[in-house]
Amino acid sequence: MIVVDWGTSSLRGYRLDADGGIRDQRRSDQGIAACQGRFAETLAALIDGWDGDVVLCGMIGSRNGWIELPYAPCPADAAALAAAMQPLQDPALPGRTLWFVPGVASDADAVPDVMRGEETQLIGLLALLAREPPTAEAHHVCLPGTHSKWVTLQDGRIASVATMMTGELYALLRTHSLLARLMDADDGAFDAAAFDAGVQRSGDPGGLLHHLFGVRSLGLFERLSGAAAPSYLSGLLIGHELRARALPPVVHLVGGSGLLARYAHALAALGSGVRTHPEDLAARGLYRLAQQHGGLTG
Amino acid sequence: MIVVDWGTSSLRGYRLDADGGIRDQRRSDQGIAACQGRFAETLAALIDGWDGDVVLCGMIGSRNGWIELPYAPCPADAAALAAAMQPLQDPALPGRTLWFVPGVASDADAVPDVMRGEETQLIGLLALLAREPPTAEAHHVCLPGTHSKWVTLQDGRIASVATMMTGELYALLRTHSLLARLMDADDGAFDAAAFDAGVQRSGDPGGLLHHLFGVRSLGLFERLSGAAAPSYLSGLLIGHELRARALPPVVHLVGGSGLLARYAHALAALGSGVRTHPEDLAARGLYRLAQQHGGLTG
Repeated sequence: MIVVDWGTSSLRGYRLDADGGIRDQRRSDQGIAACQGRFAETLAALIDGWDGDVVLCGMIGSRNGWIELPYAPCPADAAALAAAMQPLQDPALPGRTLWFVPGVASDADAVPDVMRGEETQLIGLLALLAREPPTAEAHHVCLPGTHSKWVTLQDGRIASVATMMTGELYALLRTHSLLARLMDADDGAFDAAAFDAGVQRSGDPGGLLHHLFGVRSLGLFERLSGAAAPSYLSGLLIGHELRARALPPVVHLVGGSGLLARYAHALAALGSGVRTHPEDLAARGLYRLAQQHGGLTG
Repeated sequence: MIVVDWGTSSLRGYRLDADGGIRDQRRSDQGIAACQGRFAETLAALIDGWDGDVVLCGMIGSRNGWIELPYAPCPADAAALAAAMQPLQDPALPGRTLWFVPGVASDADAVPDVMRGEETQLIGLLALLAREPPTAEAHHVCLPGTHSKWVTLQDGRIASVATMMTGELYALLRTHSLLARLMDADDGAFDAAAFDAGVQRSGDPGGLLHHLFGVRSLGLFERLSGAAAPSYLSGLLIGHELRARALPPVVHLVGGSGLLARYAHALAALGSGVRTHPEDLAARGLYRLAQQHGGLTG
């Protein structure tokens, strides 16, 4: 079986064996933003030599992707997502069926929230957690990234989703703002002390819009160097993200980036424990969805 | 007497009569970012035909300006700022002395804060307020802008300064973010209902980093149009700015931009009264500083 996680900026394919183990994997930078609508050719190249049907998740199933799937509502479990998968056949991929997994929408809040792609990692995490003694407590999951996702898992289902624009705001401020001029052009080494100072500062009164200006004024008074300022800014933003939430005793962190260590560090500083999980939960989740769906070949 | 408010992006000159009344005024877009170090020529052109010494405030007295003045510490009154003014003579402006007004720094908070230029508007406001029955209460002043300044005036002095990066963040998100793609290219008409909804939303749990993503998800579900989204975003940011502060019963709003009406509207929604003051308080403040300093000709 072949499973594919196809996001805005990256494309990952996994060839799985009958038990869901990863037999082979391929990565490319041909995210949907890069491949300019040449979806069939891009996929055919990625999975060349691999046989069978394909299960796909991520932004490939969005308005800017190959086909647009409506979001599945919360609470959503593997059975619900598998039932909502949509098939497609394409002449460039003869003899195969492509199955697209829907994203998930949450209306736990006054304003709706959504994800596309992360839901398969969460289905994978639910499969892992199902091996542990059952609990009536919810699991709280954070998937750091350009847009970090906070997800509540309860009773084997994805119960709610909340998105924080922390990573994108960091990139905007780092690149285009007045603060950018005070920072060294290269990120350089991560400065743990400056990061901690930012996390600490995020707990002061005044709010994020005020604390951001501190990057400038600390620089003016030579209390923050251009090399340390990016780490301080990162701590400030992640600190605000975390403090805006009612932090549970344990947070499950999912992802592969260096961001994970920063979140783990900040969560520890704020008194939460952490369990980390690798990004290839996506392959595990897609495998589970394919099993639930049945009828795939490969 | 000639007074000049010279900021990063604008230049304003006023010719005052002996009582401080504005006899004549000239504006230009030759802020310090535009005039590329040609300060003497730019000023000579602006004040051509006007006689006398010149008092200057704003970023012209900063590291990127003509000369760099250290910040005067809070609490600061007209006498302290006048005493800290620094003179300069330039061959391109024969027979005149130029007097530069320092900015003001505040260490009321754990992180220092600063302003350059706004302090003269506040000296002008203090002169206005001095005509009213004296009060032991502080006056709370907001100067909206790219970086809005919140200032406390007490006992005839500038007691503290806090800067909020609200306007700059709006511009960054409006121009460079993922949210920008969901908004019409032109700002179009101000949408009061969308602005109000943003101010309202800023009071919900989740924090600014989460609320920003709502601009996207409301758009996805067709609950916010591309025309209304900029007003919603503006309400969200201004709402967060205001809620991060302990709002007093009355806020003095100073400025000339359309932003003032938005702040007045949001403050009213949050239960604060408003007194508005025009931007030419700067001329009044510079006049008062010149009087305090004495010895100017013109």
